[in-house]
Amino acid sequence: MRAEILSIGTELLLGYISDTNATYLAQQLSALGIDLYFVSQVGDNLDRLRETLQRAHDRSDIVVMTGGLGPTEDDLSREAIAAVLGETPQVDPQLEADLRAFFASRDIVMPERNIKQAWVIPSVTPLANPNGTAPGWWAEREGKVIVAMPGVPHEMKAMWESEVVPRLRPLTGAILFTKTLRVAGLGESSVEERLQALLHSNNPTLATYAKRDAVDVRITAKAATEAEARAQVATVEAQARELLGAHVFGVDSDTPQSVALTMLIERGLTLATMESCTGGLVASLLTDVPGSSNAFVSGFVAYSAEMKMQWGVPRETIDTFGVISVETARAMAEASRERLGASIGIGITGIAGPDAQEGKPVGTVHIAVASDGRVSDTSQRFRGARTEIKWRAAITALNLLRLHLHREG
Amino acid sequence: MRAEILSIGTELLLGYISDTNATYLAQQLSALGIDLYFVSQVGDNLDRLRETLQRAHDRSDIVVMTGGLGPTEDDLSREAIAAVLGETPQVDPQLEADLRAFFASRDIVMPERNIKQAWVIPSVTPLANPNGTAPGWWAEREGKVIVAMPGVPHEMKAMWESEVVPRLRPLTGAILFTKTLRVAGLGESSVEERLQALLHSNNPTLATYAKRDAVDVRITAKAATEAEARAQVATVEAQARELLGAHVFGVDSDTPQSVALTMLIERGLTLATMESCTGGLVASLLTDVPGSSNAFVSGFVAYSAEMKMQWGVPRETIDTFGVISVETARAMAEASRERLGASIGIGITGIAGPDAQEGKPVGTVHIAVASDGRVSDTSQRFRGARTEIKWRAAITALNLLRLHLHREG
Repeated sequence: MRAEILSIGTELLLGYISDTNATYLAQQLSALGIDLYFVSQVGDNLDRLRETLQRAHDRSDIVVMTGGLGPTEDDLSREAIAAVLGETPQVDPQLEADLRAFFASRDIVMPERNIKQAWVIPSVTPLANPNGTAPGWWAEREGKVIVAMPGVPHEMKAMWESEVVPRLRPLTGAILFTKTLRVAGLGESSVEERLQALLHSNNPTLATYAKRDAVDVRITAKAATEAEARAQVATVEAQARELLGAHVFGVDSDTPQSVALTMLIERGLTLATMESCTGGLVASLLTDVPGSSNAFVSGFVAYSAEMKMQWGVPRETIDTFGVISVETARAMAEASRERLGASIGIGITGIAGPDAQEGKPVGTVHIAVASDGRVSDTSQRFRGARTEIKWRAAITALNLLRLHLHREG
Repeated sequence: MRAEILSIGTELLLGYISDTNATYLAQQLSALGIDLYFVSQVGDNLDRLRETLQRAHDRSDIVVMTGGLGPTEDDLSREAIAAVLGETPQVDPQLEADLRAFFASRDIVMPERNIKQAWVIPSVTPLANPNGTAPGWWAEREGKVIVAMPGVPHEMKAMWESEVVPRLRPLTGAILFTKTLRVAGLGESSVEERLQALLHSNNPTLATYAKRDAVDVRITAKAATEAEARAQVATVEAQARELLGAHVFGVDSDTPQSVALTMLIERGLTLATMESCTGGLVASLLTDVPGSSNAFVSGFVAYSAEMKMQWGVPRETIDTFGVISVETARAMAEASRERLGASIGIGITGIAGPDAQEGKPVGTVHIAVASDGRVSDTSQRFRGARTEIKWRAAITALNLLRLHLHREG
């Protein structure tokens, strides 16, 4: 079954608001196992609205409209539906009575233009709106459905849940279940190359998405029961984990920082950081996680060579290898855990730009993770603007921490 | 001139993300004086994408596409544009060289499928992407334009501002001049209340936008010459500044951190931070600014009471007033500037949540800025999730620093 969303309102096209209704409805349709092929935003213009609705009605089984049900002449959803279905609006006595009662209960005289909120057409079943004056429309004819709901999110959601979903469920068969694997240390295309064999399956489907903090691999199965869908996802998940190995750091809502902190807490370990080019971003990401103080002891931001030495990096290390060196990163990691009495230390030094240093190019970053007697490190060259380099360096540091703990078992 | 936005990606149609790119572009197009009539979201499906692009190209002068420029077989924007324009993609030697250099610089073998990120067609001028591997496309033929940009918001915005806007401006008839006032310490509705008298003017127009780090007041004038437009904006700007006073901290691309750092550098002052509940976010924001090391000396992240004392907060202060107190924030500010030999210190203590502390509610935050002989402070109660409280506390600290320096003149 194919659905399409139509979001109506000039305020969307001026960028005054984001179309969060469409996001909500997309999630709901997907959970109902209904395929959503198009989302369109149209302004308060009858020609463009009718044209767009006509096309949606022609190519989809269900059109879900939000907005355009208000009482003003800019609210044109009813007119557009009536035009597309070739039916004529009439005032429904019951809806009119309800409408007048609503205004009476607030001691307001109903503006006569509001009467169009009592309109129906022959194909329409009105949908109750407990939170506003505009009833929704469920228009069903020849096996196709057009649903019109208010644009105000809390009115729309209440109507969707209580009035629309119960009418949609009988029309759909399947249940959907989705699980996301979060992948670190591989680009999206490398992930796809590894998963080549799984990418073309239709059910479960598998798709990759590049997110700022990871590459997501989303596995979705459609089945008659949730248990069945879960079982299908589990099979593909096992194959994907086999192909991606330790690059899979978490699932669903896991983040690089939440996973690293959980590992620290489970092992009863504490963490301290000494950051140069990331300037406190690693500490900030760690402290985004509730309960981070159970493992994250403290952090330094040590920009200058003097500060690094003041906080325990040996002068010889900096003199011999330079501030931008893996040796300095290792010394920073050691110094932070010793100075702060933490079991693990992270050291990060590099060049976020815009200017090169020590003849080394912008984007050069050295990262080290030190625990008692063992140090892991990585040296990278990141591209992009200053904030982008900071971000990639911080995410890479969190991943190195995870792998370091992983090796310790 | 008529524009249309096409947002490409199955993740939109599954509701995994909201189409905030469309909101941003809608605001930008409106500021350029370009009419936006339709926004469409399409999945990663060549037939549906081509069908939708063909229609958009037929009925609009400019089609702005985001997404579908990745290296995978799900990324089909280039294929769709080539099909609609009836042109054949070829590998551009320069783009290929850049692409291979990017992978070489990271010691990664380029997956061969990435080569399509070096494609062009005859009508296309490639658009530089400083933050990623996918160049954009500017396809111009017979007076119509199709622009394709990456879907990752920070890559898209950077490309839009530096590559697309300069090419669009000449195509729009009238000259538009826009200036944005950046406002701190007031909510969007308070800003609108103060600017009531100016909000309904047609030219220049004035609109407010709530951004994460400020409320923006955008003043846009349309005129025959840029000088004329600038003059019109200047008049309204003066009135707006009169109504908003010291809440205006900057213009256009200024940020709370860039403004504070510029003031410090101009005055030859240095800064150190001691952060508790913000966990390094203030240091990280400051170090987002190129050249921040000219003023920002160093930062501590001191979560526990012990760490605060180890770094110079008197035990009596914590015992008497508690860790979550304005007195402790003031002591942290003093300690950080003394310990790190900076002229100014910032101290932040509070409860980011989820659990209350010392019987004080989640969201309680105390911030202090100390310079030789003078301390400014503020105590706030922020609402929202942990990361939101951290963010608001950090932005408030940067604003307090600005006002502190402002008073010192």
